Amino acid sequence: MDIFFLGTGAGVPAKLRNVTSIALKLLEERGAVWLFDCGEATQHQILHTSIKPRRIEKIFITHLHGDHIYGLPGLLASRSFQGGESLVTVYGPPGIKDYLNISLKVSRTCLRYHLEIIEIDEGTVFEDEQFTVEARLLDHGIASYGYRIVEKDRPGTLLVDKLKAEGLKPGPEYKKIKEGIAVKTDDGRVLNPSDFLGPPQKGRIIAILGDTRPCEAGVFLAQNASLLIHEATFSGNEEELAREYFHSTTIQAGKAAKKAQVKKLCLTHISSRYDKEGWVQLAEEARTVFPETIIAEDFMEVPISIDKQ
Amino acid sequence: MDIFFLGTGAGVPAKLRNVTSIALKLLEERGAVWLFDCGEATQHQILHTSIKPRRIEKIFITHLHGDHIYGLPGLLASRSFQGGESLVTVYGPPGIKDYLNISLKVSRTCLRYHLEIIEIDEGTVFEDEQFTVEARLLDHGIASYGYRIVEKDRPGTLLVDKLKAEGLKPGPEYKKIKEGIAVKTDDGRVLNPSDFLGPPQKGRIIAILGDTRPCEAGVFLAQNASLLIHEATFSGNEEELAREYFHSTTIQAGKAAKKAQVKKLCLTHISSRYDKEGWVQLAEEARTVFPETIIAEDFMEVPISIDKQ
Ligand SMILES: [Zn+2]
Ligand SMILES: [Zn+2]
Repeated sequence: MDIFFLGTGAGVPAKLRNVTSIALKLLEERGAVWLFDCGEATQHQILHTSIKPRRIEKIFITHLHGDHIYGLPGLLASRSFQGGESLVTVYGPPGIKDYLNISLKVSRTCLRYHLEIIEIDEGTVFEDEQFTVEARLLDHGIASYGYRIVEKDRPGTLLVDKLKAEGLKPGPEYKKIKEGIAVKTDDGRVLNPSDFLGPPQKGRIIAILGDTRPCEAGVFLAQNASLLIHEATFSGNEEELAREYFHSTTIQAGKAAKKAQVKKLCLTHISSRYDKEGWVQLAEEARTVFPETIIAEDFMEVPISIDKQ
Repeated sequence: MDIFFLGTGAGVPAKLRNVTSIALKLLEERGAVWLFDCGEATQHQILHTSIKPRRIEKIFITHLHGDHIYGLPGLLASRSFQGGESLVTVYGPPGIKDYLNISLKVSRTCLRYHLEIIEIDEGTVFEDEQFTVEARLLDHGIASYGYRIVEKDRPGTLLVDKLKAEGLKPGPEYKKIKEGIAVKTDDGRVLNPSDFLGPPQKGRIIAILGDTRPCEAGVFLAQNASLLIHEATFSGNEEELAREYFHSTTIQAGKAAKKAQVKKLCLTHISSRYDKEGWVQLAEEARTVFPETIIAEDFMEVPISIDKQ
């Protein structure tokens, strides 16, 4: 599980920061990549990475501002052109369906795969045996969602040596133990699964917020996350401006991270008014509040490691 | 007057060729830039050029396939964000209005300038004292237009020395002569404008065709043009494939240039199946039919010089 930043700028593309898109690489977990937002030229950024468009399984849109969605029709069309055949599900605020349908229709784009578009509301927007994704409305003038991606806890590793010592040979019984089901040995003893499993592996939590002013919902979504990805469009001394444009400052992002007791904060959605030296400054501002802060850059990868207990 | 290629690839963006957009730089002529098509990331390409988005005055769309239009909403939005205030007119096939209106509406994009969208038909789509732009339907499965841009002839340069010899001093009379109006000297003689003007400057003609199979309309639009920009999605030996996908081969583009008696042919819309060596080959194929052929590359500029008579 890794976060890969495809675009980390704000509003308009700049030479060093494209408009927003974040990939959550779940290659080991499910052979898939999930995208969060898809600004213009996200597919161009992907050309310079190892990400395969056909692996993209889900695209979560935080809000409908152009710098977060204008790359969507092109990415979907190219994925088809390049042989993508599996289902893609797009989640986003109401309006996303009209936008995509018109864009694909006027351009006569026939996708070779099934495209599902889900207009979301607050709450659980996706759940399967591996993950839950929850959405909450933030504070950005238009409907802007934050997402909390929760990996479910996984059973501990099978203590094979211990099972063998009990005389149980590898086979379907091992699978049962792994699934938490008690098993009977040939001589009639009952083996309790918990005695033959290591400690359960705690699922990881990531929070990816759309553009927003500081707000309670953001802190709620980020609670105890391994990583919080928070916008920091403005420097700490631009609180007025940030408020006016429904954005956050570095300091405000740091405060949210602290309140939510996350492990790590990553700032993104950086205005093009800041240059390379400015970026260092921005990260340092947030660190005065929350030391475990980094600032995102295009093509930066952040591994999300499993919690050792 | 220069042609500047912003994107010269076909279908999907590739590392060395972005999807289609061609700029006609009319900086000396009217301080403006016209675009022909606007594939995704055209604004990103512009970032690496001297073109100012606020100078973009007109955008002519050949057809609505995604690789020719998906960069339009982003370009228009960024032009506003970057302070563009003057009118922009977009010309394109029916459907372009819906596409743009929905894209700008769902993203809540409020442009600071007036945007005029004209859904065109065959015929003259624009005319003023400097230029005429004519459109004709080509053969591409969906409505795909070619454009013929005709610069109007300009009066010859004023023969100032000759006027001075007649005793006429610089002033409003000079302007009248330039405009072809006869002028009376103080001592009552009538000066005939044609005696005091050099030979008129012949207007230039450029033909920019959308995706197409070879067709009569293309040849009609290109008649005697200084430059014909013709797609060549396929190599000369792929005539079957070209026909099936409503495209042209290098040889077919060369034949069109020859029939239309243009001065120069420029191939574009090059499939990503061809690499750098392939490009040389493609140009050579066309040259067997029409020697004055070049192949476009991203960021290539082609000056359109004035005809010396
Ligand atoms: Zn926004
Ligand atoms: Zn086309």
